[in-house]
Amino acid sequence: MLNLKALFEPRSVAIVGASTRLGSVGSDTLRNLIVSGYKGKIYPVNPKVKSLNSLKCYASLSQIKKNIDLALIIVPAAIVATVLREAGELGIPAAIIISAGFRDVGRDDLEQEIIDIAQKYNIALLGPNCLGLINPAKKLNLSFAPLMPGKGGLAFFSQSGALGTAIIDTARDLGLGFSIFASVGNKAVIDEADLINYWQHDAKTKVIGIYAEELKRPEILGPVLDKLRSGVNAKPVVILKSGRTKIGASASASHTGAMAGNDAIYDAFFAKYGVIRAYSVNEFFSYLQIFNSNDNLPAKNIAIVTNAGGPGILAIDSVADSDLDVANLSTISKQKLKKILPPAASNHNPIDLLGDAGPERYLSALEILSHDTKVDSVLVLVSPQSMTRVDELAKSLILWRKKCHKPVAICLMGSSSMLASASKLRHSGLAVYFYPEEAVKALSALAVFNELRHVVRKNDLLKLPTISHTSRHEADKFFIQAKAESFQALAEFQTLPILKAYGIPTPKFIVVDSDKDAILAAKYFNTPVALKIASSDILHKSDSGGVMLNVQPQDISLARRRLLKAVAKNNSRARLQGVLIMPMIEFGEAEIIIGAVRDKSLGHALMFGWGGIYAEVLNDSSFILPPFNEDTIKKMFSSVKVNALLNGVRGGGVVDKKALIDILLRLYCLLRDHPEIKEIDLNPVIAYTKGAMVLDAKITLNNN
Amino acid sequence: MLNLKALFEPRSVAIVGASTRLGSVGSDTLRNLIVSGYKGKIYPVNPKVKSLNSLKCYASLSQIKKNIDLALIIVPAAIVATVLREAGELGIPAAIIISAGFRDVGRDDLEQEIIDIAQKYNIALLGPNCLGLINPAKKLNLSFAPLMPGKGGLAFFSQSGALGTAIIDTARDLGLGFSIFASVGNKAVIDEADLINYWQHDAKTKVIGIYAEELKRPEILGPVLDKLRSGVNAKPVVILKSGRTKIGASASASHTGAMAGNDAIYDAFFAKYGVIRAYSVNEFFSYLQIFNSNDNLPAKNIAIVTNAGGPGILAIDSVADSDLDVANLSTISKQKLKKILPPAASNHNPIDLLGDAGPERYLSALEILSHDTKVDSVLVLVSPQSMTRVDELAKSLILWRKKCHKPVAICLMGSSSMLASASKLRHSGLAVYFYPEEAVKALSALAVFNELRHVVRKNDLLKLPTISHTSRHEADKFFIQAKAESFQALAEFQTLPILKAYGIPTPKFIVVDSDKDAILAAKYFNTPVALKIASSDILHKSDSGGVMLNVQPQDISLARRRLLKAVAKNNSRARLQGVLIMPMIEFGEAEIIIGAVRDKSLGHALMFGWGGIYAEVLNDSSFILPPFNEDTIKKMFSSVKVNALLNGVRGGGVVDKKALIDILLRLYCLLRDHPEIKEIDLNPVIAYTKGAMVLDAKITLNNN
Repeated sequence: MLNLKALFEPRSVAIVGASTRLGSVGSDTLRNLIVSGYKGKIYPVNPKVKSLNSLKCYASLSQIKKNIDLALIIVPAAIVATVLREAGELGIPAAIIISAGFRDVGRDDLEQEIIDIAQKYNIALLGPNCLGLINPAKKLNLSFAPLMPGKGGLAFFSQSGALGTAIIDTARDLGLGFSIFASVGNKAVIDEADLINYWQHDAKTKVIGIYAEELKRPEILGPVLDKLRSGVNAKPVVILKSGRTKIGASASASHTGAMAGNDAIYDAFFAKYGVIRAYSVNEFFSYLQIFNSNDNLPAKNIAIVTNAGGPGILAIDSVADSDLDVANLSTISKQKLKKILPPAASNHNPIDLLGDAGPERYLSALEILSHDTKVDSVLVLVSPQSMTRVDELAKSLILWRKKCHKPVAICLMGSSSMLASASKLRHSGLAVYFYPEEAVKALSALAVFNELRHVVRKNDLLKLPTISHTSRHEADKFFIQAKAESFQALAEFQTLPILKAYGIPTPKFIVVDSDKDAILAAKYFNTPVALKIASSDILHKSDSGGVMLNVQPQDISLARRRLLKAVAKNNSRARLQGVLIMPMIEFGEAEIIIGAVRDKSLGHALMFGWGGIYAEVLNDSSFILPPFNEDTIKKMFSSVKVNALLNGVRGGGVVDKKALIDILLRLYCLLRDHPEIKEIDLNPVIAYTKGAMVLDAKITLNNN
Repeated sequence: MLNLKALFEPRSVAIVGASTRLGSVGSDTLRNLIVSGYKGKIYPVNPKVKSLNSLKCYASLSQIKKNIDLALIIVPAAIVATVLREAGELGIPAAIIISAGFRDVGRDDLEQEIIDIAQKYNIALLGPNCLGLINPAKKLNLSFAPLMPGKGGLAFFSQSGALGTAIIDTARDLGLGFSIFASVGNKAVIDEADLINYWQHDAKTKVIGIYAEELKRPEILGPVLDKLRSGVNAKPVVILKSGRTKIGASASASHTGAMAGNDAIYDAFFAKYGVIRAYSVNEFFSYLQIFNSNDNLPAKNIAIVTNAGGPGILAIDSVADSDLDVANLSTISKQKLKKILPPAASNHNPIDLLGDAGPERYLSALEILSHDTKVDSVLVLVSPQSMTRVDELAKSLILWRKKCHKPVAICLMGSSSMLASASKLRHSGLAVYFYPEEAVKALSALAVFNELRHVVRKNDLLKLPTISHTSRHEADKFFIQAKAESFQALAEFQTLPILKAYGIPTPKFIVVDSDKDAILAAKYFNTPVALKIASSDILHKSDSGGVMLNVQPQDISLARRRLLKAVAKNNSRARLQGVLIMPMIEFGEAEIIIGAVRDKSLGHALMFGWGGIYAEVLNDSSFILPPFNEDTIKKMFSSVKVNALLNGVRGGGVVDKKALIDILLRLYCLLRDHPEIKEIDLNPVIAYTKGAMVLDAKITLNNN
């Protein structure tokens, strides 16, 4: 176990590379630490000077000869390892490397060296290439950030240092205090899983905020997130993940790959583990505010109180776009409201108090809503009108809030005239927004998290089918051959047998390379057949003219010749392995696509969606990360449009979902056994009221 | 022509209902007008007092006996008409009725009375039930709003008074000045078309902002908007329209109605006339800021300059979601950037100046971008770092801006430490945001408008087919019968003949009500047929078991009996008109749905989308408002997924689009002739490589 307490709450800090040079990181960091009011011991280390900022300066860590909890390292990259090794030998349990010049500039060797040292000596190491960390409650600024945030319930870490300082700046205005601010840099040793695991048990931490460009160790991070989400003291995790558009979807050879564009795999990861994803910096702050200012209580049914009609309508529009519902007030509430409100006011939700409402009228209405069990959460909209007395209203809202334990958001419509009140409300622990849409979105995130945290992840992982040694061996042959011949892909005639070996239902087929064999095959099937080109170089067969359907047995020779001619015309350089002949299969209730893609960090994600030749055009798909239970599969089904067909819409039959789930599980086994699968498409999968059948499939392989 | 100049720039104002009672509207308004510094004459009218605020008070308008440009009316609703008539008789050209109590409380009669008076005397009348108007350049506050906005280029009108005051408040902080602020209330006489028409010629107005819950007179408003969009001095119109979720889609009887939910018709209207729609108050301000601070120039290719990597990545993510492209810098720019930047900086877009960049480095880079013809617009991202010197940077940006004529947005990442600089930049005419996503979205709106304004709306309306008198008469019969029998809907067997009369291709069919006739019909067609229940009470036939496909002629009796039995079971109370027999039609390249819905304000909107039994499940549709030209139709096609099928994706043939357009035009003729059509579905329309055919259709009728 790494000693993260020594990192976050050190009793003594040595700064290796403390400097006298004004404006240098070594000077700024030392000054920040002294100025912040830190009560522990500070030992500057710099062989060139005797003292720094009136503190005795040491020539090296070894010279200090005192107990040191944390070494803050700001020396050039080339000598960082030496310093870290010294720290390790002295038994220093924690270190921060602010210096850059490691993996960030391609020096993976230097980074590996410090990882090895940290592991050898069990050092809780933050960085390298980071801004440092800040613990406001301990008045500890171990960074070169010029700003000291207030203390509070937000534990935040950022992969970007600069964004971190911007966030400290904005958080102050929002009344958002920090339990810890950490800049994680290259995440050589300590990564998100370590931090979140630590904060789970940190009483000061109420909500965790993350800015990340990539995530590490998903297999460790996932369970940590899950524990955090579902525990008695569940804490929400809000993530702003950038680099959404880096995954170039256009270059993908498979439908699944194309449909996975725009970060669908990360979305699947966050959905799986109950992480709230923000899609903009503004959303990020909205969510952090609402979670920081409210307990994790139900928020689904929202009551809206307003002194103006327009903003009320805008809020209702937003509720319709959100996961919230407009609360249906109890009869008693409506009666009580009618009594206290002027005749022209509305006692229905949204409750329009009218433009001349003062603090008293707001309070009377809010008191009533506090006690209405049909109301989960309350949005208070305030427009600046002559009678509003915003300052006084703010004071009343602060008092009311102490008695009302439901989630609350305040929306002050305006700016200059509202700023002072906004600040007062925020610093009294209320979430304040200036736009109704943002307030509604934030309350919606709260409602979503509260539902997520009550989802019981039973120990009910779906049992994986057993794949026999013989079956595996059968499938392996194709992968071994592909490797030997440096194939980048496996075509239908190679993939279907692999699926079959894994117990996935596929039709019989014969690959022929002569007219004679074609005629024999047609005779054997004695039914209309499909002809498809068999070539590892052609993955989009119909685009190459390589598919002919419903060919009568007697027409087989002609059809085969035509097919070969069409393919030769469209794809003259493709190596052909023959023509695949398959009996025509009866159409069922729906055509499905099942597939998978591999992300270098998160591993294989499985896809389910509307299949057939229009799969990409329809782009109706959902991704999940294994392993699965009933719930995750159900959610996957219900999040795609084709689900309506599975349930028998418009006179259709109800599909055998168990057969589809069986295919998903068997596909998962295949992926588990073959990490070299980059992308796989099973398309179409025909779904029947009894059973299912994969008619076509292909695999692309990782280059390495 | 209404005299709007008298309304917006009156030389003299009479306030009827001016009052002494503190806090009353009559008192606030008079005080606002005096305090605002208005240079014209002010005549308070109140029979009960001799003077008000040191001004002589008159007993009535007639008593003033001076030239009056504008009457501001604040008396109770019941006597407003009397006052307005008096104003009319005195030849007063403009009036504002602030009083409520008209259509807003269901008194349409009172509202009609003032409309009649205004028309008789040609009064430019604003209101009733409004906040009034403000002309900052004339120091004229004709409202009871407590805030006086700054003067500037924004002409704004609001249907909600309270939202208007909130907007004045926020605009001040954003450096947004107003040419006119108007609260339009019930829009009894003056509506959006009048105002926009006036502002087109108003030199002070640069951008028009609208908050509306509904729009009036679309047939006048549309051409006004079009002129404004495309003129030499094109001005952008930004609208925040609420009440998006009022149109209850669930109650709709047709697929088109269901698919029109969420305001699709208004979206079609805005798209048609080049109006920029904001979907939240925040977006509204973002767009107003960018248009107010920049000329209407191309913005498509954006260059991003940043002093931090994280925000740069976030901005690039947003560009991918927007209508902008990441500019490909010229080779010369890249070389120049390389020269002036430190080695670790990026001279590619986004240009990362590194964390230690000061104002000088920013300026050098920005100078280079100003002259790069491959760069249309520039986003400057600033994170608060030790070396940033934000205040100084702001001054430099203001100087640079004077020389750079490209569209520019500044994003200051942070809050407290940025506010002073933000204010300085904004009041120097720069658009400033705090979040990169908002800055990108705003520049994207600018790019979109600049493309829209150069779209030449040729005088190329598609020629409507001629519908003969006989054909019309043929169709009329069904509508007359429906009216006589109080039908709410016309089923397939009634609708197909109507379509046929209008020249839309439909299959032959026979409705039979006996076994004998069924057998005769089967013999007549001598091909597999479809059987469908014929009943005005059953609009969703397949849901009632009322459809059987591919029935062989010899099986017709049995099939008919089964069909009737199934329908009787599912829909025992439906009145049946028989069973419709239609030959099976060959499937083409795509199944389309073509339909229309009627909005009470905007009239009929036509829909085009992916049809068939899964039309609603797929929900792939686009709406347009007639009349059409080639462009609007092309856009409609290209905005739906099914367009890929029209163009022959995955081996399919290319569809005869002319045949589909012909159906749209003929449907439009039908709608023109029959405004009583509330909703109509043509589904499926089979699209062939030659021709098209409507296989099924239904109509629902307006109740009145």
